[in-house]
Amino acid sequence: MATERATEERQITPRAEDFAAWYNDVVMRAELADYSPVRGCMVIRPRGYRIWELMQRALDDMFRETGHENAYFPLLIPQSFLAKEAEHVKGFAPQTAVVTHAGGKELEEPLVVRPTSETIIYSMLGKWIQSYRDLPVRLNQWANVVRWEMRTRLFLRTTEFLWQEGHTAHATAEEAEAEARLIVSIYRRFMEEWVALPVITGPKTEAEKFPGADRTYALEGLMQDNRALQAGTSHNLGQNFARAFDVRYQTPTGELEYVWSTSWGVTTRLVGALILAHSDDRGLVCPPRLAPLQVVIVPIWKSDADRAAVLEPAGRLRDELAGAGVRVQVDDRDSLKPGAKYYYWEARGVPLRLDLGPRDLAQQQVVLARRTGGKAPVGLNGLVDTVRRALDEMQAQMLASARARREAHSVRGITRDQLVALMAGDGGLAYGGYCGAASCEQEVQEQTKATIRVLPDPEFRSAEAPVICAWCGRPSVAEAVWAKAY
Amino acid sequence: MATERATEERQITPRAEDFAAWYNDVVMRAELADYSPVRGCMVIRPRGYRIWELMQRALDDMFRETGHENAYFPLLIPQSFLAKEAEHVKGFAPQTAVVTHAGGKELEEPLVVRPTSETIIYSMLGKWIQSYRDLPVRLNQWANVVRWEMRTRLFLRTTEFLWQEGHTAHATAEEAEAEARLIVSIYRRFMEEWVALPVITGPKTEAEKFPGADRTYALEGLMQDNRALQAGTSHNLGQNFARAFDVRYQTPTGELEYVWSTSWGVTTRLVGALILAHSDDRGLVCPPRLAPLQVVIVPIWKSDADRAAVLEPAGRLRDELAGAGVRVQVDDRDSLKPGAKYYYWEARGVPLRLDLGPRDLAQQQVVLARRTGGKAPVGLNGLVDTVRRALDEMQAQMLASARARREAHSVRGITRDQLVALMAGDGGLAYGGYCGAASCEQEVQEQTKATIRVLPDPEFRSAEAPVICAWCGRPSVAEAVWAKAY
Repeated sequence: MATERATEERQITPRAEDFAAWYNDVVMRAELADYSPVRGCMVIRPRGYRIWELMQRALDDMFRETGHENAYFPLLIPQSFLAKEAEHVKGFAPQTAVVTHAGGKELEEPLVVRPTSETIIYSMLGKWIQSYRDLPVRLNQWANVVRWEMRTRLFLRTTEFLWQEGHTAHATAEEAEAEARLIVSIYRRFMEEWVALPVITGPKTEAEKFPGADRTYALEGLMQDNRALQAGTSHNLGQNFARAFDVRYQTPTGELEYVWSTSWGVTTRLVGALILAHSDDRGLVCPPRLAPLQVVIVPIWKSDADRAAVLEPAGRLRDELAGAGVRVQVDDRDSLKPGAKYYYWEARGVPLRLDLGPRDLAQQQVVLARRTGGKAPVGLNGLVDTVRRALDEMQAQMLASARARREAHSVRGITRDQLVALMAGDGGLAYGGYCGAASCEQEVQEQTKATIRVLPDPEFRSAEAPVICAWCGRPSVAEAVWAKAY
Repeated sequence: MATERATEERQITPRAEDFAAWYNDVVMRAELADYSPVRGCMVIRPRGYRIWELMQRALDDMFRETGHENAYFPLLIPQSFLAKEAEHVKGFAPQTAVVTHAGGKELEEPLVVRPTSETIIYSMLGKWIQSYRDLPVRLNQWANVVRWEMRTRLFLRTTEFLWQEGHTAHATAEEAEAEARLIVSIYRRFMEEWVALPVITGPKTEAEKFPGADRTYALEGLMQDNRALQAGTSHNLGQNFARAFDVRYQTPTGELEYVWSTSWGVTTRLVGALILAHSDDRGLVCPPRLAPLQVVIVPIWKSDADRAAVLEPAGRLRDELAGAGVRVQVDDRDSLKPGAKYYYWEARGVPLRLDLGPRDLAQQQVVLARRTGGKAPVGLNGLVDTVRRALDEMQAQMLASARARREAHSVRGITRDQLVALMAGDGGLAYGGYCGAASCEQEVQEQTKATIRVLPDPEFRSAEAPVICAWCGRPSVAEAVWAKAY
């Protein structure tokens, strides 16, 4: 059984051979998720769910610090609500799951399982907002949503997914815009500092924006197969939903005005992004700050006498690390050899491993192995500090490596031929001029499968602003970043 | 506007006049929840949701300490799954909401919005459990569920509600029974130490147990209208779901055995219990450990000079308290007078108020007002300790008061006539002998509207064990606790 399992652990399809198969193998071997008997729905297993919980905790703290409050709105939404905002219903109606019967009867009006909650939230805001004194309203909700997808992939695209959706209402257009941008900066900080995922930010084109938004900002990361992944979005909704649901407030001078609003979200897809950005052919590589288990201690023994002699200090070490806030565990299973344990924890993405054998102990040291490579003896003295430093270093290095990878696969000042060749070949991020025409955007997509991920914010733009559209040669109105995407 | 609001705050129907109206008024005035446009579904507003989050955090820590892991299973369950366990489908099918259409098409098999997740979870456990080495499995899920209810009440009974549902699988019947009982002890500790709600524990009768369980344990609290409220349940499912979903494991000696399992849950109904148990005619009274805001500082000024002079030390005090982990806020609104602020925060259940005026400051003191009654000046020196002690005292006193209230409304050794009179009158908990016959249980319910809440665990039983059934006079097989219930 033990040997069988150890062997099984190693059967991960190499990235170079089949990237999609590799991804699924990593998810399954690390026990992050599993396929469910319900079409397009996944089960998030404890090791995967813990990553999501750590993400939630970090984001929730950031939201709270910036004045947002959590609330909860109904799962089921009257079908007619969706229709109140024209773009919104066009975007979401084809994807909805509809409850037509309940309590043994057919319903008078069908209820839609929420694909997003703007409509139900705006139906309430009208009741709560009367005066400018009631503004801003800054709500966030952690919830499940359902969007009927044709092709699904674990974490990346599932019929049901978990997310947070922020919804805010403001007195002025400027405040709503500032909120939408504030959220982009929070998301970016979270993705860089926690997920170790460098992102490019900027507005989406008209074709790619949220149904019902005036403007959508996105955060895009580059995965190891050189495809982009949209990691989060923040929408300036203007007064669209306020008008659709008649949400008005009295100004200090007594007029009635529609509120200005935003919505924004990140989803369990981020767990998929984490896997795609960092993992390797041995399995999951998890940034230390989001690792359910940060350190595993593997005691090494041959005889029963050795066993007792290493387990006791291993336990002490665990308690010391746990006391310092490190998520740590001793793998004292009798049923697996140390080598098998190494494979086991490597596949599960534990950042640091401490091997503890009788000889190490005699020398007052342990062997510290990093999931990202490297193995060396370190002294037991000051080990808590050594471990913390190693975790911090790994966190920083993972971000730096991902950034270097991204830059190595970014082409600036791209021409039409280069764009076609890049997308037919290795892929990556293509920066180039864009004329602003929807027709160009569409042609590029048809001929290269690449889409405009964002019109990059200033700090991501090329040193030399492009002059002409990379596709049609007419004058450029904005730099664009093209990529094939998840 | 300000005066209007202050007046509005006071319009809470007195308990003595109409208990149900009082409850709704408290919920609405405290902005804990609101009615939604979706039948039977509520919106949980930030002040209510924060109480639930604090409950979640406390329970989650307890679950984790006892070896449970969080996971997430699909919202939608194939209708046929429910039918696999005979009792289960009988209990839940009439209450389900059914998705019949999705993605613009009629589904081949309708999907049920989960009323509980045993069936979908057991369909997965069969895949994950092979050997005794894979046991026990101890999972918990924080999720929303839908049960189509005819009559709903904010928090207490809603079509959609939030809950945690634990699901565990074990190698032996004894382990499953120990787990079901462990959870009862965790729930009890939580309800007493956090919700300040004294509970009576014990098994339910056959008629009242969970559909699909061998045995259901419940925790029952007494509300201020002398009706009982079931605050949590823990089910020993025996091998019922294991058989229905063929979940077997290989024993150390190579045989295949069905696993033994449990499930258990508490819901957002606990927020309702908190309100019903402690609040008064001025609004919400919240146990300090679950209070979103524990201390509100009300600076008092008449002149602009006073204002500046009190706001600065008020801010310092807030920072000091916040630094000590107290949830605290300064109410520095210009638009409300101090008296209006008092009403405002009383209705919202903030445990402690600190009034800070120029004269107090001159004397190096503040006035500390307790939501549960009492107001006295306390020195600024050592105020953090004073506040912490006051919060702890209030937490303990609320539990003691609720327990005294319950005991004052408990009748032991009840006779048939007393039972009829008690339930026709004030209500309360009636302890008496029970013959074990379903017919007696049913007759009592028909004639008094009271049900058997639990067959109490030893420590809750009367000193003298009853000899005869309170209803029929035949020999008693167990003491029972009757009450009218939510």
